[in-house]
Amino acid sequence: MMERRFSRQVNCGGVLIGGDAPVSIQSMLNTDPHNFDTSKEQIDTLVNAGCEIIRITVPDTKSLETLKLITEYSSVPIVADIHFDYRLALGAIEAGVSKVRINPGNIGSDDRVKAVADAAGAKGIPIRIGVNSGSIEKNILEKYGNTAEALVESALYHVSLLEKFDFKDIVISIKSSDVNKTISAYEQIAKATNYALHLGVTEAGTYTQSAVKSSIALGSLLTRGIGDTIRVSVTGDPAEEIEIAKAILSATGNRKFGPKIVSCPTCGRTKVDLIGVCKEVEKRLAKCTKDIKVAIMGCAVNGPGEARDADIGLAGGTEEFLLFSKGEIIRKIPASRAVEELIEEIDKL
Amino acid sequence: MMERRFSRQVNCGGVLIGGDAPVSIQSMLNTDPHNFDTSKEQIDTLVNAGCEIIRITVPDTKSLETLKLITEYSSVPIVADIHFDYRLALGAIEAGVSKVRINPGNIGSDDRVKAVADAAGAKGIPIRIGVNSGSIEKNILEKYGNTAEALVESALYHVSLLEKFDFKDIVISIKSSDVNKTISAYEQIAKATNYALHLGVTEAGTYTQSAVKSSIALGSLLTRGIGDTIRVSVTGDPAEEIEIAKAILSATGNRKFGPKIVSCPTCGRTKVDLIGVCKEVEKRLAKCTKDIKVAIMGCAVNGPGEARDADIGLAGGTEEFLLFSKGEIIRKIPASRAVEELIEEIDKL
Repeated sequence: MMERRFSRQVNCGGVLIGGDAPVSIQSMLNTDPHNFDTSKEQIDTLVNAGCEIIRITVPDTKSLETLKLITEYSSVPIVADIHFDYRLALGAIEAGVSKVRINPGNIGSDDRVKAVADAAGAKGIPIRIGVNSGSIEKNILEKYGNTAEALVESALYHVSLLEKFDFKDIVISIKSSDVNKTISAYEQIAKATNYALHLGVTEAGTYTQSAVKSSIALGSLLTRGIGDTIRVSVTGDPAEEIEIAKAILSATGNRKFGPKIVSCPTCGRTKVDLIGVCKEVEKRLAKCTKDIKVAIMGCAVNGPGEARDADIGLAGGTEEFLLFSKGEIIRKIPASRAVEELIEEIDKL
Repeated sequence: MMERRFSRQVNCGGVLIGGDAPVSIQSMLNTDPHNFDTSKEQIDTLVNAGCEIIRITVPDTKSLETLKLITEYSSVPIVADIHFDYRLALGAIEAGVSKVRINPGNIGSDDRVKAVADAAGAKGIPIRIGVNSGSIEKNILEKYGNTAEALVESALYHVSLLEKFDFKDIVISIKSSDVNKTISAYEQIAKATNYALHLGVTEAGTYTQSAVKSSIALGSLLTRGIGDTIRVSVTGDPAEEIEIAKAILSATGNRKFGPKIVSCPTCGRTKVDLIGVCKEVEKRLAKCTKDIKVAIMGCAVNGPGEARDADIGLAGGTEEFLLFSKGEIIRKIPASRAVEELIEEIDKL
């Protein structure tokens, strides 16, 4: 992993973004913004899954009432997603949100931009400028086409409107649904500014599509030290986004979320139900916070060798498993007891 | 995407690997190598999913009989996975495999390496050298530790043993279960040789873990022009590997597998069952080979704009969808007819 890009740190309701702060995980509610009960329930699900910042759309004045209840209820910072109407941004800040996502170029006059910047500044709330490949200004599109350069130019335009009023607690996102364009846009903006970056691929699709696109784009950037907070977009249950986000941050080495499980794909040499054992161990360790490496391997010949640096592991034999630690075989376990005894050993670590 | 690295092309039973050949998709059977019926069934599943090369373990002499039946049966090239016993490699070549995966340093004397190289050479069959982080030679581990450099050094050692006998139809893989180490190892070997590279992350884990790790590592490499054939390892159903592999090659722009679907993650503005519609469209288009972009968006305000360059798409309203093409609204469709009419329009394209 390359050294992390320097970025100006902002404070989103106690969750620091940028600088040396851990790369945080965001999601967005897809519940009715006028329904507190369903929103509350989804907040619980997301927080329980490990979401650290939650965004919610604020489409009208009526939703500000629910928003107030939500900011009071939520244990994690709430971000208001505002389009076009600066009064909703002011209302959301009043309702206690910890960040506002708004593109100043879309809200009209300088006066309005100043009103939002001043209100956010007074409460120490950062603003995210969120440019998507589908919302680039016409004049920029004409000049650059729908390219990474256009995304960057659009973001810098919105940034300049905030800087005009000395507002600098800025986070930037420039998302495309195209992986290569997303990577290129973030690489360019990373050089052009020192603001914190919110990474994401827009309209990434359903689970597998999103896991793959988000992993390639965010993974490429994070391994090059770019990115301060991430959102994985899934057309599906928002909690799925958190599972993928955690896996990305863990795989790139940015964050640790409990045991790292390595397991082989099985092959014709495997004579145990490795897939079943593996899924069960994964489930049993879901809440474990130990920073260990657990290897679950199909065959006794390669097993211990393949996972020489695992803290503990299983290697399948015939109707039994070998329990091993750091490449050394400890003892044999009958297949039916494998999960139980592995978990017991992990508890002892 | 950067320009593709030059690599020496080999022919694996009609599927070209390296040079300007499309990056191919591999998987491996996890059926009993002595059971032709279950193996045959899994070959069908894999081929149907889009697998282009299938590997199978050859653990003993008895499995050579089944292997012969398999090579005769399979419509895609079969690769023999050999460990330690050079006679099994000779037997597999005799049984009609299209490639052998073997590490010459593990099979004993120079005579044996020469026997395998000559037999493969006589039939024009390439050999893959497959180094994993768990199988590095002791002397190399002592010198380099378990690092990317050790993987590269080990691979180059095995390569040198084949080159000694003028064998050059080589493919190399150097897989680690660590994403950063995998990327670094392939970057180094890509510079050190011009042999074709088989990309993969070893012991990548269950579905999500593997999708994420494989996407980061393979995606990072492919977008930099490195990689000629890929295998995604999943502890699970091998057909899942193909779904992820296709998504990776599609997202990086290496290959096209029919329509590209972009869909939003939904939010509080969404008033239709977008997730349901999206999953249904994905299913209905699974066998479609048209090179088009289909956008399925939750809201009527951003929908058409977000997908300006989509060939066709849906944007959700209240109880209805807008059908749009290239950012222009065509007509309204009641929610219950949305999937049907979208598919009809796609059929007309």
